[in-house]
Amino acid sequence: MSDAQNNIERVKQFLASSLEQAKPLLKHLHPSDIARILEDLGPETRQLIFRLLPVETASEAIVEMDEDSRPEELLMQLTPSQAAKIIEELDPDDAADLLAQIPLKDLRHILARLQVEDTKQIEQLMTYDEETAGGIMTPELLKVPDNFSKREAMDEVLRISDEMEDFYMIYVVDENDVLLGTVGINDLIRAKPWVKVRELIDESCVKVHVDTDQEEVARMISKYNLAAIPVVDDQGHLLGRITFDDVMDVLEEENTEDILRIAGVSEDEELRGGWRNAVKSRLPWLLVNLLTAFMAGLVISTFSDTIDKIVIIASFMPIVAGVAGNSATQALAVTIRRISTDRVTDSQNFKVIFKELVVGLVNGLLLGTITGVAAMLLGGNPMLGLVVFMAMVGNLLIGAFAGSAIPLFLNRINVDPAVASSILMTALTDILGFTLLLGLASLVLDL
Amino acid sequence: MSDAQNNIERVKQFLASSLEQAKPLLKHLHPSDIARILEDLGPETRQLIFRLLPVETASEAIVEMDEDSRPEELLMQLTPSQAAKIIEELDPDDAADLLAQIPLKDLRHILARLQVEDTKQIEQLMTYDEETAGGIMTPELLKVPDNFSKREAMDEVLRISDEMEDFYMIYVVDENDVLLGTVGINDLIRAKPWVKVRELIDESCVKVHVDTDQEEVARMISKYNLAAIPVVDDQGHLLGRITFDDVMDVLEEENTEDILRIAGVSEDEELRGGWRNAVKSRLPWLLVNLLTAFMAGLVISTFSDTIDKIVIIASFMPIVAGVAGNSATQALAVTIRRISTDRVTDSQNFKVIFKELVVGLVNGLLLGTITGVAAMLLGGNPMLGLVVFMAMVGNLLIGAFAGSAIPLFLNRINVDPAVASSILMTALTDILGFTLLLGLASLVLDL
Repeated sequence: MSDAQNNIERVKQFLASSLEQAKPLLKHLHPSDIARILEDLGPETRQLIFRLLPVETASEAIVEMDEDSRPEELLMQLTPSQAAKIIEELDPDDAADLLAQIPLKDLRHILARLQVEDTKQIEQLMTYDEETAGGIMTPELLKVPDNFSKREAMDEVLRISDEMEDFYMIYVVDENDVLLGTVGINDLIRAKPWVKVRELIDESCVKVHVDTDQEEVARMISKYNLAAIPVVDDQGHLLGRITFDDVMDVLEEENTEDILRIAGVSEDEELRGGWRNAVKSRLPWLLVNLLTAFMAGLVISTFSDTIDKIVIIASFMPIVAGVAGNSATQALAVTIRRISTDRVTDSQNFKVIFKELVVGLVNGLLLGTITGVAAMLLGGNPMLGLVVFMAMVGNLLIGAFAGSAIPLFLNRINVDPAVASSILMTALTDILGFTLLLGLASLVLDL
Repeated sequence: MSDAQNNIERVKQFLASSLEQAKPLLKHLHPSDIARILEDLGPETRQLIFRLLPVETASEAIVEMDEDSRPEELLMQLTPSQAAKIIEELDPDDAADLLAQIPLKDLRHILARLQVEDTKQIEQLMTYDEETAGGIMTPELLKVPDNFSKREAMDEVLRISDEMEDFYMIYVVDENDVLLGTVGINDLIRAKPWVKVRELIDESCVKVHVDTDQEEVARMISKYNLAAIPVVDDQGHLLGRITFDDVMDVLEEENTEDILRIAGVSEDEELRGGWRNAVKSRLPWLLVNLLTAFMAGLVISTFSDTIDKIVIIASFMPIVAGVAGNSATQALAVTIRRISTDRVTDSQNFKVIFKELVVGLVNGLLLGTITGVAAMLLGGNPMLGLVVFMAMVGNLLIGAFAGSAIPLFLNRINVDPAVASSILMTALTDILGFTLLLGLASLVLDL
């Protein structure tokens, strides 16, 4: 167990015995660890502990809390002026996110107690779509005009480093606030005092538009190994910046979303939520699943004569359907992951589908042969073996095609490819697999 | 399409017509984009382009290439001295990763051409487990003794910023190289020239042990929003540091691994690999699946008399098995994601399982009622409705338990919980679902 975890455990023990004793211990904890503790506490204790924290720690802890644990409620239980004090300590983007969760009537009281400039900035940020660059950027950054000398720029660095801990980069703008490029702090330190900032500019700096999807921002930061990326509008005006830690959270969220969607869980499900939330997010998909399962059942009942005559064929139904369903899910997972880490271009679509079809054919021939031989021996009928073999190969090809083509198609029409869940895959391979197996059987064996 | 993508497309077009024409264009591309182009090219063209690049660009591009596309082969086709030149440009950790892929006989020739100190450093790094902090750290960092004055430290900053672009933090060590804490570059700039570094130290800095799992490192960097984290040994000696961009790659890898494993794909599968690689990584799981499907088939054939008598029950088999299988996969995805973003403590295990059981019960009662009523109406037999209802509820409970308890158990015994794939889930719910449905039917209806 790490030191931090040891500390968390100790604080929890103290909390159980006495609140006052906890106070000095809380001082030694990182705000992220305090956030974790707050998440785990009941509503009353949580509020008590939160009030014990100095304003600065409280503000740092509240932004680190999981959204699912509703940190905004902590603010709403304070007086508007107390809440405003905490809001003022926050980065404007975090403040905007938090305030977006607060009902309008409470919100007004808090905003009324902020400085006019802060209110403006926060209100502006609240207008951007949550899932775009504008939604995750902060307007706080280190920027200097290009006609500044090294000495003037250094003064600005010193001034700003009082307010901001990690600026990473100095952004250089022209007189209209259009982003010209960046200057590394090291390059600035090493420059002679009279050198103009514009001579130090790195113009090749990567930037994003304010409407860029947050997932795309994450991809760029990861690809170009950037600690921070500047955000601009249509005219190139510098609006803010997004730092690596913001997009790490985005990456985690998007990955959770992908995994849940593939498994047929609505993205709204809270991982730490209660059973009501879980039922609400999963039942709709299971109802879809029930419908498709009824359709599969309908296929079976259509061929009940065939099953009646050759009962052993019923035993091969779960084999043909299940193996193809799982192989479709395999193809789906690989394709979705490939899309989200790699961006498959249109010209590669057919290559991806073709590869999956080859994989499906090879696996189908191998698994179909095993299953076909088993069917022949168990049923004492070579034709039964042939039917099972053909159904198996056919259904694995169907699964391979669906598992690759459907997510690629969804991606092409700008729908999250993970919507093509394993539920959809198994529905297809169930319905078409039964149709293949029983249809072929009735054609070949029934006569 | 972004500017970068436009450029990539243009370069690809030029490459098709003339190599020489491509050279000036390559200059304007980011090494990450060049890496993408190299990945997409055939082996010969790739080698030709790679040789066109200046050593610095070549080294930056080669580390950005996907491991699956075997960047080490580019090195192996150079002369050992050319390869050594590129290796010398790399961060030691990247050099170690790349060299680890090269066969020993080629490796010796390259190492022999490096400077002794580089060789030592790289060989040391190659001894650490790839998946630990030691495996992803770089020994290059900005460190100063605690008895340095601000002025001496600033000189060191200037000296090191020639070699290293992003140092983020100044690490302060004692005379034995034991890490004492960090100093922010801003704090250093603002300090008076004669102030000792030790007076500026932030001792609360988060650090990791060299053996820490890379996933844990990623979690800490994300939790504490760190641009870099120092790595120490048992005695606290400063060995290296890990930057946010290293762990972003780790996060991507681990997420791919999770999704593939849940879908029953071996983690060795290369997303961009050929069909042979895909068959190799998926067939074993499908063979396991075939075996479990045969067991499900065996259950059906055991009850073939029952099916013979009430053929309509066959139609409800895919419903009972399929819906429960998918609801188990839902529970599995949520639980795995919860484990990997949250670390479920032992005391929470039962809470998680209990929640899933409640979800399974509620969904089971709802879906079981619909299915049971349908069975009653279609079969014209209230007892059939009851059997289907009970089987449905029972199988959803089985799915809920398996989907939560199995990954938690695996996590408890330090096995990746994602090994509990959807294949395992559907196997369980198929076999036990058929047993429940047909067993109950033979008990209740058969007599």
